[in-house]
Amino acid sequence: MTRKLLRINMSDLSATYEDMPEKWAKWAGRGLTSAITLDEIEPTCHPLGPNNKLIIAPGWVSGTPAAPSSGRTSFGGKSPLTGTIKEANAGGLSSQKIAKLGIGAIILEGTPKDGKWYTLHITKDGVQFDDASDLMGKGMYEVDDLCWQKYPNEPAVIGIGQVGERKLSNAGISVNDPENKPGRYAGRGGMGAVMGARGVKAIVIDDAGGPGVEIADMDLFKQGRKKLTAAIMQHDLTKKDGGLNSYGTNVLMNIINEAGGLPTRNFSAGQFEGAALISGEMVAEMVEKRQSGMTGHGCHPGCIIQCSNIYPNEEGEDFVSCVEYETSWALGANCGINDLDYVAKMTWECNDIGLDTIEAGNTVAVAMDGGLLEFGDKVGALALFDEIRKGTPMGRILGQGVEATAKAFGVSRVPTVKGQSMPAYEPRAIKGIGVTYATSTMGADHTAGYTIAPEIAGVGGKVDPLSKEGKADLSLTFQAATAFIDSTGYCLFIAFPILDIAEGWAGMAESVAGVMGMEITGDDVIPMGKEILKMERIFNERAGFTAADDRLPEFMRFEKLPPHNVVWDTSDEDLDLVYAWVNGTDE
Amino acid sequence: MTRKLLRINMSDLSATYEDMPEKWAKWAGRGLTSAITLDEIEPTCHPLGPNNKLIIAPGWVSGTPAAPSSGRTSFGGKSPLTGTIKEANAGGLSSQKIAKLGIGAIILEGTPKDGKWYTLHITKDGVQFDDASDLMGKGMYEVDDLCWQKYPNEPAVIGIGQVGERKLSNAGISVNDPENKPGRYAGRGGMGAVMGARGVKAIVIDDAGGPGVEIADMDLFKQGRKKLTAAIMQHDLTKKDGGLNSYGTNVLMNIINEAGGLPTRNFSAGQFEGAALISGEMVAEMVEKRQSGMTGHGCHPGCIIQCSNIYPNEEGEDFVSCVEYETSWALGANCGINDLDYVAKMTWECNDIGLDTIEAGNTVAVAMDGGLLEFGDKVGALALFDEIRKGTPMGRILGQGVEATAKAFGVSRVPTVKGQSMPAYEPRAIKGIGVTYATSTMGADHTAGYTIAPEIAGVGGKVDPLSKEGKADLSLTFQAATAFIDSTGYCLFIAFPILDIAEGWAGMAESVAGVMGMEITGDDVIPMGKEILKMERIFNERAGFTAADDRLPEFMRFEKLPPHNVVWDTSDEDLDLVYAWVNGTDE
Repeated sequence: MTRKLLRINMSDLSATYEDMPEKWAKWAGRGLTSAITLDEIEPTCHPLGPNNKLIIAPGWVSGTPAAPSSGRTSFGGKSPLTGTIKEANAGGLSSQKIAKLGIGAIILEGTPKDGKWYTLHITKDGVQFDDASDLMGKGMYEVDDLCWQKYPNEPAVIGIGQVGERKLSNAGISVNDPENKPGRYAGRGGMGAVMGARGVKAIVIDDAGGPGVEIADMDLFKQGRKKLTAAIMQHDLTKKDGGLNSYGTNVLMNIINEAGGLPTRNFSAGQFEGAALISGEMVAEMVEKRQSGMTGHGCHPGCIIQCSNIYPNEEGEDFVSCVEYETSWALGANCGINDLDYVAKMTWECNDIGLDTIEAGNTVAVAMDGGLLEFGDKVGALALFDEIRKGTPMGRILGQGVEATAKAFGVSRVPTVKGQSMPAYEPRAIKGIGVTYATSTMGADHTAGYTIAPEIAGVGGKVDPLSKEGKADLSLTFQAATAFIDSTGYCLFIAFPILDIAEGWAGMAESVAGVMGMEITGDDVIPMGKEILKMERIFNERAGFTAADDRLPEFMRFEKLPPHNVVWDTSDEDLDLVYAWVNGTDE
Repeated sequence: MTRKLLRINMSDLSATYEDMPEKWAKWAGRGLTSAITLDEIEPTCHPLGPNNKLIIAPGWVSGTPAAPSSGRTSFGGKSPLTGTIKEANAGGLSSQKIAKLGIGAIILEGTPKDGKWYTLHITKDGVQFDDASDLMGKGMYEVDDLCWQKYPNEPAVIGIGQVGERKLSNAGISVNDPENKPGRYAGRGGMGAVMGARGVKAIVIDDAGGPGVEIADMDLFKQGRKKLTAAIMQHDLTKKDGGLNSYGTNVLMNIINEAGGLPTRNFSAGQFEGAALISGEMVAEMVEKRQSGMTGHGCHPGCIIQCSNIYPNEEGEDFVSCVEYETSWALGANCGINDLDYVAKMTWECNDIGLDTIEAGNTVAVAMDGGLLEFGDKVGALALFDEIRKGTPMGRILGQGVEATAKAFGVSRVPTVKGQSMPAYEPRAIKGIGVTYATSTMGADHTAGYTIAPEIAGVGGKVDPLSKEGKADLSLTFQAATAFIDSTGYCLFIAFPILDIAEGWAGMAESVAGVMGMEITGDDVIPMGKEILKMERIFNERAGFTAADDRLPEFMRFEKLPPHNVVWDTSDEDLDLVYAWVNGTDE
């Protein structure tokens, strides 16, 4: 492999192309961002200080021809939100373009001496440091537009909105989609603030004339790609006109509500009476009724699942991409809001200002719980985003996310783990995902080990969501598989078909082996995933995290969740089993 | 001993007098609050949730006849600011009155079901739960006035200002002084928010007709008291018309500035050109010039050191007590403000609203560093306290203290340890106090182990402040002695004479032994102090704290501090030596 490491130092505005060191040579995506973070970032550094770095890495197969749904870019470093290691990934245009420039990872470090802000223009000829004055203070819709006007070849645009400029800890990193809109976010963990701390407003990537991705064994790659593609196209959830293609992730709204696991009004109930009104089915209905927008939208070139959508506004115009499950839940059910048009408007605000929608919705919900607004006040909720955009003191509170907002309003019902708020699955009612929230290296994160697959969707087996049995093992297996998939560049949604179809699992591994010339098979997926998790745990341990941080918030242990009237009762011992193998304390 | 434990449960408005359990029988003050906290509070509970408690305990000798300077009350529990165990103590009227009611500790637990607020009236006849509507929203000057109007016998008033009502994490607990003013604060760690979370605005304590403090061995007590009193009256720092009596703690301003260890403009320099203008000498000059106010003021009955003052305003009226060193530094030098009248005005605001002045001054300084105001803008700084009083969004940010403010303004120069900001001694220039800041069980806290005594004042020996040698041992010895003294009820300032005068040290121990009927001598002080520290470390360990938390902030390792141009270079290994004995990892 001849992938290069591109090191960009903002202190002296230098860019150097380094050979990929042997110690990192086998990694890509999340495996690579975590390896570099562990080796190069002091775990006790201040996340916004001069010594944190932003690591950007495409996956193993990103940029290869016709690898299905393989456009994920990993963003890593130390998180301002959690204080842990962080990898957040996004679709959009960047992954394939970085890979095609022959770059394995970008290490963005240092701080401009003059306090100036820059746009980095990365092409086959190197890195140009452009004055970003024209973009400062602007939202991502305008930033993406301006970058395509200014730079040729419809480049990838990685950028931050106003919250990232202010270095607030719910700042995400936006990647433009094929329509050059900012709906694709490496949202979680405040990595946009790390980019802001480097003095970089946007990174524009043009792969024209780049060397492309070298493929070590084309036959093996093609064989794996074929198996994986077949599995995706065969599985009910991912096939053409299947669940995800028809309704997007928001097909889950009614299902999770039915299961009593839909966090409602700041995690005070497990069912929302307005769920159907903000569901994927309702998105499809609005697209049909308003004769605009679309379902089955792809977030990056080459996606064959196409779970995204474009939501139409009341005027019948394409308005925002995309109203997915997490977003519709966070800004809807969790705030007691049952109006999809308002969910869409708030989603647009998040995309523009540069906020993670999960954390933003939870933030509004916690503020409501603290008495700022009534639950269900959609007009008041929407207006809060204007405060965030302007950077008023209220906006500076809310722009930091849930924990800061809870502290500002004296709220003790705080649905976070390691400082990051929970996604759209109630851990009291769906116990396995609670184990993932508690023990993940990333803070509360469903994508870190999506046990919802067997607990709710019957994918990869079927287990009782309300049972505690075996959930530590289940979560670990999902966390390890996820760490591997997050390194491939493939979208995590390939997990559904490959969990059920063995050929697909093997195909994924073979496609990676083919690109990299490594001898790996399906049997290596879990062990390699655990290698990544181990690096991340070591970083966190050095940063001061212990078993006491692998816990759900206290209120879930004593507040009973309707309708099942259950508490979080998984024992600490069970939680500590998940990572016992890292410490060597497993039997 | 027949001390009772008074357990007040706000959930059912019950008060029960329990026999002091054997396991806690030997403790008082900090030793007792820490023992109860360790045994009764779940270390991972939410500090503002229903399961945290506020523990209030007078010291061993509090309430005994003529024990010198023995009016300290300890307030303990889990801190909303740091997440650690916390003991903060204050002078004022409460300690002696609680003790004379025969109460060893008050455990305040539960949460009013109806969201109502209460004033607790504690007398020899029990506890009365009064509606606090008349006090809500009011500052502490008015609360103290109203309580003396409403309740007989000039009672002790323990109360919280508006920030405590809002449960913000820089809320202190006020105790009224002999003039019924609120200048005495258990300020650090946000314990006022814990009191607020219990729905209690004020605790009024009337000891009339109480049983008084039982003294097991009056002869031994008197012998100890006599030795201690003699030492205090003999030592240069504590004698009549000595350093503290003449100029208060603010005698340090010029001395620390001279040593290059005065944190200036958010810890960016070690000397402040305006130091003399905000010094203790200048306070005395203003008292003289304006023919009002006073120096040599005692903060509680029976104090023979009398280091407090009453600062006069421009109109020649008694204005505020007291402009002490930490306050004058935090609101002065650290904000680049050189005007004592403004320092006094901001001090009055802190006293009234219920803020710890150290954290409040650091908060303004960090906000200045983040661009909210220019350093030195005294008018702008004073106006910020109005925001805090009103509870505007800006006030909710600032009312939480330094870390929240730093995050809101994207500042990475954050002078905190375990979430609590540093007092008025620069650890880069005075290395021993840095070891205390880093390793204390309480977060950055000078009173936790005041190595300034030998490093600057030549008390208890003389060591070089700029040297790293032997500072781990030095800090541990001071931390242990402090934990003991914080349990006696004596003011920590007895440390100066007893460190230099062996008879004083012995006398302190004998006075405690006399009251309690325990066989302890001066030799037991350090071992018993270490017992207390061990309980506190265990709590913190269970709460998730590790060696990685026993560190100074990153910026001090790479930003050179003028005028000595030194960085914080004490090794992690040295820091970990301090508490190696708790983990059994010392050799």
